[in-house]
Amino acid sequence: MGPTRTSYWQEALSSHKEVVMKLRLFTLSALAAGLLLGTAAQAQENEPVQPIPAAVVTDPARVELGKKLWFEPRLSRSGFISCNSCHNLSMGGTDNIRTSIGDRWQEGPINSPTVLNSSLNVAQFWDGRASDLKEQAGGPIANPKEMAFTHELAMEFLSSIPEYKAEFKQVFGKAEFGIDEVTTAIAAFEETLVTPDSRFDLWLKGDKKAISDQELAGYQLFKGSGCVACHNGPNLGGTSFQKMGLIEPYQTSNPAEGRAGVTGKDADRFNFKVPTLRNVELTYPYFHDGAVNTLTEAVDTMGRLQLGRSFSAEENAQIVAFLKTLTGKQPEIMLPILPPSRDNTPRPVPFGS
Amino acid sequence: MGPTRTSYWQEALSSHKEVVMKLRLFTLSALAAGLLLGTAAQAQENEPVQPIPAAVVTDPARVELGKKLWFEPRLSRSGFISCNSCHNLSMGGTDNIRTSIGDRWQEGPINSPTVLNSSLNVAQFWDGRASDLKEQAGGPIANPKEMAFTHELAMEFLSSIPEYKAEFKQVFGKAEFGIDEVTTAIAAFEETLVTPDSRFDLWLKGDKKAISDQELAGYQLFKGSGCVACHNGPNLGGTSFQKMGLIEPYQTSNPAEGRAGVTGKDADRFNFKVPTLRNVELTYPYFHDGAVNTLTEAVDTMGRLQLGRSFSAEENAQIVAFLKTLTGKQPEIMLPILPPSRDNTPRPVPFGS
Repeated sequence: MGPTRTSYWQEALSSHKEVVMKLRLFTLSALAAGLLLGTAAQAQENEPVQPIPAAVVTDPARVELGKKLWFEPRLSRSGFISCNSCHNLSMGGTDNIRTSIGDRWQEGPINSPTVLNSSLNVAQFWDGRASDLKEQAGGPIANPKEMAFTHELAMEFLSSIPEYKAEFKQVFGKAEFGIDEVTTAIAAFEETLVTPDSRFDLWLKGDKKAISDQELAGYQLFKGSGCVACHNGPNLGGTSFQKMGLIEPYQTSNPAEGRAGVTGKDADRFNFKVPTLRNVELTYPYFHDGAVNTLTEAVDTMGRLQLGRSFSAEENAQIVAFLKTLTGKQPEIMLPILPPSRDNTPRPVPFGS
Repeated sequence: MGPTRTSYWQEALSSHKEVVMKLRLFTLSALAAGLLLGTAAQAQENEPVQPIPAAVVTDPARVELGKKLWFEPRLSRSGFISCNSCHNLSMGGTDNIRTSIGDRWQEGPINSPTVLNSSLNVAQFWDGRASDLKEQAGGPIANPKEMAFTHELAMEFLSSIPEYKAEFKQVFGKAEFGIDEVTTAIAAFEETLVTPDSRFDLWLKGDKKAISDQELAGYQLFKGSGCVACHNGPNLGGTSFQKMGLIEPYQTSNPAEGRAGVTGKDADRFNFKVPTLRNVELTYPYFHDGAVNTLTEAVDTMGRLQLGRSFSAEENAQIVAFLKTLTGKQPEIMLPILPPSRDNTPRPVPFGS
């Protein structure tokens, strides 16, 4: 893996069909190379998927502050919704519902993507409108359909609480802090939310018994049929934008137009960031509209719409079995204790307008 | 402490005014006894408040299962609301809003009481309609204004998930399980949610430096003026039902009638379970209607309405300072990882009717 490989894929993926072909050739040559070199370890170096590296925490105080903010419902107008409401770390970093519930129970426009391993994505949100986690973190707080707060009110709340003031000062080395420090801390926490040591990663690292024959057959099919053209790299996705409904159009009542909303280009309509397949067993329902509940159906739909291929029941089961080997070690989160509001802290507005 | 003391108070508290008098006499005699005996330790044995004992976990597997269920939003119709939504263990076991947000953002009828130390209460809910935690736990799941599920659907959900089936079997020693086992496990987890080692408890145990002079003066005032008539025992409350607005009527737009709804007796109108004062710094807003945001206002209102006494600003500050010594060690909760839904698991219904 590394920047070179990633750049290669990013460029290559500009044309999906071309890439499916390239990928098949790549896969064949990689397999051939592995066979020639004759060692399992070397064959795995040529895989288009790489193991997830464990998180390296360089500033634990910053991460700890970010964790508090992550679980902080007082960053919402109602005092009820936190980052964890829609990216629940008990449930694969998602809410497991089709589209999220926002302030006043508003129906969200799109399925909440998992926060797990999201630091490995090339951009954030389904349409990639935020370039990184820090930029993303400010969005939901101020989105009137999500947490429905404002950055100003968020700062008024945080500044009224001595423990937060002291902690921001300790972490950032200065008394003043604003939304920039808030989102920096949240992003620092999110960067720790990686899931190493899935069974597939153990296999990639050379443990041949880590996955079953059926699971291995699923991986080979996943590579050979072209899934890996988009779902590659350590995150099995997250490296490119691709059209949903490449070969057959995708039928949905969801009005999201994807990347076109960011670039303004008609060619980007229905282009969405390829979602990670890490922990995909936990991140149902699937697709940007959350329309599909099961991996069996998701694999079938993807095969037909993106690859023009109907997987047999056996093939589908193999791929699903492989996908379930991608569930990694979930982050161990000690629930933070949040400092109490003070007499002068603005109060949540859970009801009324 | 112990059953004898508790029974004494429960009987005595049947008439509040009488008790205020008794308490003053009791306090005076206790203080006199302490002085006569001449030792701090003995004086503390006579205190009407006792330290919170640490939780004793006899069945960790049961507690662990209960913890999963506590954080399980799939026990709600929407898949969004868990026990922890309204009794947030990051925020003193409450939601810190006036009345809770339920399914479809319905406004709850009453302020969510803290789950912390709730096992020490004589009954559950503000009106005591559940005799214990197990009985309480089934309520919100099936309440159409709260989690809006049914016990049948809850069982259908849990039974579809192999990990839950295995865990119930391991904990209860049989393959079949129902709502009875669900609420038993939740109650077992809740029983661990105690907060020992507050500064006041350290003081009660003999550490004279654990609280300041102002805080001690607050405690003496708390005892001497009659607050402790109702807020006594290890939980500083939770042992009796008392009329809200004893001396002056309490003005509220909240229609809750309290204990009368359970007993059918007119004399029980506006009788509510005395809330614990443990961690009261964290459990704002106050009173059954959540109408009061600050401890200063709560102490002032209680003094006037329940005791017919106007505390001076200095006295009020002393009592508030004392109340803040009641914040104990918060439970350390490792966030559980919930087992994923399966293809046959019923899906949440977050929107629509």
